[in-house]
Amino acid sequence: MFTPQPNDMWIRPISLKLDPPSLKDNTADVDRLVKALRRELGTPKVLAAFTLAAELPKRLRDAHYQVDALVYEDQDVWTVFAAVPRSESPADVYGLALDLGSSTLVLRLVDLATGRIAAERSFNNPQIEIGPDILTRIHYAGQKQGLTRLQRLVVDRLNREIAAAAAENGVSPERLAGLSVAGNTVMTHLFLGLDPYWICREPYIPVINTLPITTAGSLGINIHPAAPVYIFPNVGSYFGGDLIAGILASGMTERDETAFLVDVGTNAEVVVGNRDWLMACAGAAGPALEGGVASMGMMAAPGVIDKVVIDPETRETRIHTIGELPPIGICGSGLIDLAAQLFLAGMIDLRGKFVREACGDRLIELDGIRHLTVVEPEASGTGKPLYLSQPDIDALIRSKAAMYTILTTIGNTVGIPLHAVERFYVAGTFGSYIDPRSAITIGMIPDLPLETYVSLGNTSLEGATRALLSAGARRESHAVRDRITYLELNVNQEFMNLFSAAKFIPHTDRSLFPSVGGA
Amino acid sequence: MFTPQPNDMWIRPISLKLDPPSLKDNTADVDRLVKALRRELGTPKVLAAFTLAAELPKRLRDAHYQVDALVYEDQDVWTVFAAVPRSESPADVYGLALDLGSSTLVLRLVDLATGRIAAERSFNNPQIEIGPDILTRIHYAGQKQGLTRLQRLVVDRLNREIAAAAAENGVSPERLAGLSVAGNTVMTHLFLGLDPYWICREPYIPVINTLPITTAGSLGINIHPAAPVYIFPNVGSYFGGDLIAGILASGMTERDETAFLVDVGTNAEVVVGNRDWLMACAGAAGPALEGGVASMGMMAAPGVIDKVVIDPETRETRIHTIGELPPIGICGSGLIDLAAQLFLAGMIDLRGKFVREACGDRLIELDGIRHLTVVEPEASGTGKPLYLSQPDIDALIRSKAAMYTILTTIGNTVGIPLHAVERFYVAGTFGSYIDPRSAITIGMIPDLPLETYVSLGNTSLEGATRALLSAGARRESHAVRDRITYLELNVNQEFMNLFSAAKFIPHTDRSLFPSVGGA
Repeated sequence: MFTPQPNDMWIRPISLKLDPPSLKDNTADVDRLVKALRRELGTPKVLAAFTLAAELPKRLRDAHYQVDALVYEDQDVWTVFAAVPRSESPADVYGLALDLGSSTLVLRLVDLATGRIAAERSFNNPQIEIGPDILTRIHYAGQKQGLTRLQRLVVDRLNREIAAAAAENGVSPERLAGLSVAGNTVMTHLFLGLDPYWICREPYIPVINTLPITTAGSLGINIHPAAPVYIFPNVGSYFGGDLIAGILASGMTERDETAFLVDVGTNAEVVVGNRDWLMACAGAAGPALEGGVASMGMMAAPGVIDKVVIDPETRETRIHTIGELPPIGICGSGLIDLAAQLFLAGMIDLRGKFVREACGDRLIELDGIRHLTVVEPEASGTGKPLYLSQPDIDALIRSKAAMYTILTTIGNTVGIPLHAVERFYVAGTFGSYIDPRSAITIGMIPDLPLETYVSLGNTSLEGATRALLSAGARRESHAVRDRITYLELNVNQEFMNLFSAAKFIPHTDRSLFPSVGGA
Repeated sequence: MFTPQPNDMWIRPISLKLDPPSLKDNTADVDRLVKALRRELGTPKVLAAFTLAAELPKRLRDAHYQVDALVYEDQDVWTVFAAVPRSESPADVYGLALDLGSSTLVLRLVDLATGRIAAERSFNNPQIEIGPDILTRIHYAGQKQGLTRLQRLVVDRLNREIAAAAAENGVSPERLAGLSVAGNTVMTHLFLGLDPYWICREPYIPVINTLPITTAGSLGINIHPAAPVYIFPNVGSYFGGDLIAGILASGMTERDETAFLVDVGTNAEVVVGNRDWLMACAGAAGPALEGGVASMGMMAAPGVIDKVVIDPETRETRIHTIGELPPIGICGSGLIDLAAQLFLAGMIDLRGKFVREACGDRLIELDGIRHLTVVEPEASGTGKPLYLSQPDIDALIRSKAAMYTILTTIGNTVGIPLHAVERFYVAGTFGSYIDPRSAITIGMIPDLPLETYVSLGNTSLEGATRALLSAGARRESHAVRDRITYLELNVNQEFMNLFSAAKFIPHTDRSLFPSVGGA
């Protein structure tokens, strides 16, 4: 848990006991509040949000001039936007952090004074009903009312979740004093109602990278309408605020040690750096790593296979499912496990092709394509067998090869060979399910001591939380953005050579993977 | 005409030729614009208004990346809020200055680059239909929907006038880049939809004195919706932004010379000061000085008597009317002229009572009250005689006595006897119609050489214009506000003694008015 420091909070409640007005001191209500805040904050740059004025006279009189003023800072100017009846200290004022994923949104309700996470809610991005992939949504945004509909879908759903989280924790919406959002560039555009049209067209120009603080009301977010909304800046069309948030959460820019940070997904996003420098690149890894294309591939959910162990002698396959329910499919981490175990048991070869002798009866042909029966119908949650096809493995190998090639390329560029990497952060919820041992076995990530790998979980959400609670973290997110050197991946001959070499399990150059046994 | 200095303009068009995006430079559209403005403005503190983002991509591409960016400064932070196709220099971008009077609004359309006044429109405050006086409007504001209605009335009318002024000058609304407003405290509150309830109740607390810059859109003003609206700060319930604007327009705070500034109206508002200090007070003078209570009293309009000359020998009365039409009433300045001429002709005595012998047949009694026929029915524009009643003169004398007493009191407080005043500014449209010679004759203002008096016309409008065009003037308006010492007028025995002495024409102490002849 990140503990906010009072002087570092850019959204703050400030408890005030104002002198009531008198004939000797007939300062106007708003001016009285602002004057007291100038004293408390030690700066003349304090303004009142215009929307506060109308309600303030009654608020002050009802509360006998003892209120918690809610303020936020932007560009060294503090804005007071609310005055709520003074509470016992510490004031119970909350903020929200949002991981704005293209598949899943995760929302945190955070006590601003203590950093305590009061609630966390995860839910599907309702834009999935328009299209599961980003390109479909970009296309839809260009249609009449499309952009508005995409924005409304996500904002409406978010409002429902906010209301539920607030109600469950007995928090009134007017005490929700800020929102921090980390998403990729396209998700950020759609959230703001900005057309991502030019993002996917050469030369790939977002509408905006560095977003001004805006108010919840102007975005239709049902917290205090004048509360600030902070949105992480993007580096470019293919490197978004979610990754900046990830860098922030990793703390890699605070240390001398050079670390790798990788976010595994449809895009493989890699950052390398330390206190002094940062280099990033992103490349298409394909959806295979997320289990998105395999015949039995599914997103992580109850009944989905997430771990596989195959006895190399008997080739008996033991599976584990989320919630330990009968299996209905496999997620990306399960697929990586399965491929690694198949390789170690000699059931696929170094090109990833099924080995008939080792697979035995479990290998069948359907429409001329080889399939391995992973789960028999009687053990399956669907009543049907679960298969892994040859094309599923082929796709996985292309994806893992792309990932390894991207890592090699950025390592070469910064002059750090992969075997010398001291710290390797794995970002993202999906990444946290991957067993590094299996990922090494299939040659997706370098063969480093397992303790080198640190899974950080949902770094986008964690970074958003920090930026909500800390002015320093918010500033750092901009400093990170401005400091990153973005490496454009040139898919040239050298890249293709590396890629071809990585399309083996674990690699054509076995010396790179000394710890991996098998065929 | 006030000529803006390019570096002093806080609302500015900035002509930009941006480099079009490329694969080598895929900076986002908004960031590209902001980056260029940071360079032009020489500060990193440049933000984009969130509302600009949605429209910018098309704007930039349509204009081939050559645009006039409209920016404004607040708290040392520049906000870019519009990008319009680049025009020939100087860019034709306009602002509006508004004198928000309780009776009359005056609107100016001003070329921001040159300060040229392209149009000026004067129109009644439509809130008059709710009540001509401020107290009625305050009361109405407390009723259901009353406040909203009062605000809508004035905003709707203002929008109609803005649209007409813009259309007549071929200016598109999106090139109206700012509004500056000077009004008294209550008018300012009603304009903003703030309830003035506590302004007229002890201890007389406005909702707000120092107003943040807000946007036109949030107030429903139909100029560029993200354009800034500057509203003059108030000193308190009875000393409003219109007077701050007046001080600004007079330039008295730029000089060593100590000057008096007086705004004549229902309230007599007086400011004394120079570069180093400022003292102000306001007191009720009654509506008589504006002609508001006399039986034939009217606001200045065609057919209204504005000047009167009476031959002291023949007592023949010659009148002048606005537009030289048959007379239908008399305005305040005409009333002051009339009273002075009646006194000099011996038709009223030093107590302001009609002198029967001098008035002759023209003095009649109606309902037991003496009336002087000023215009015979056959000369009148109404077909009826125009009368001046004894109570009309009595009211005028109380008002002029209040004015003189207030002047004496503040003069005594600052240690400047009235006969030593070097410069005496008369502010306000109404004030500019007053003949100082007549006002001296009735003892309303001190008997100073006529060249001491300088009529400044509509200082509220002029101040608003300067604050629109000049960051320095805008800053100065706040400095003035913070520097003013407000003198609370104690209606004590001393004040009443001074008042009683001033209730004669010109005064009980004739030595104070050596230039005045007559009885």
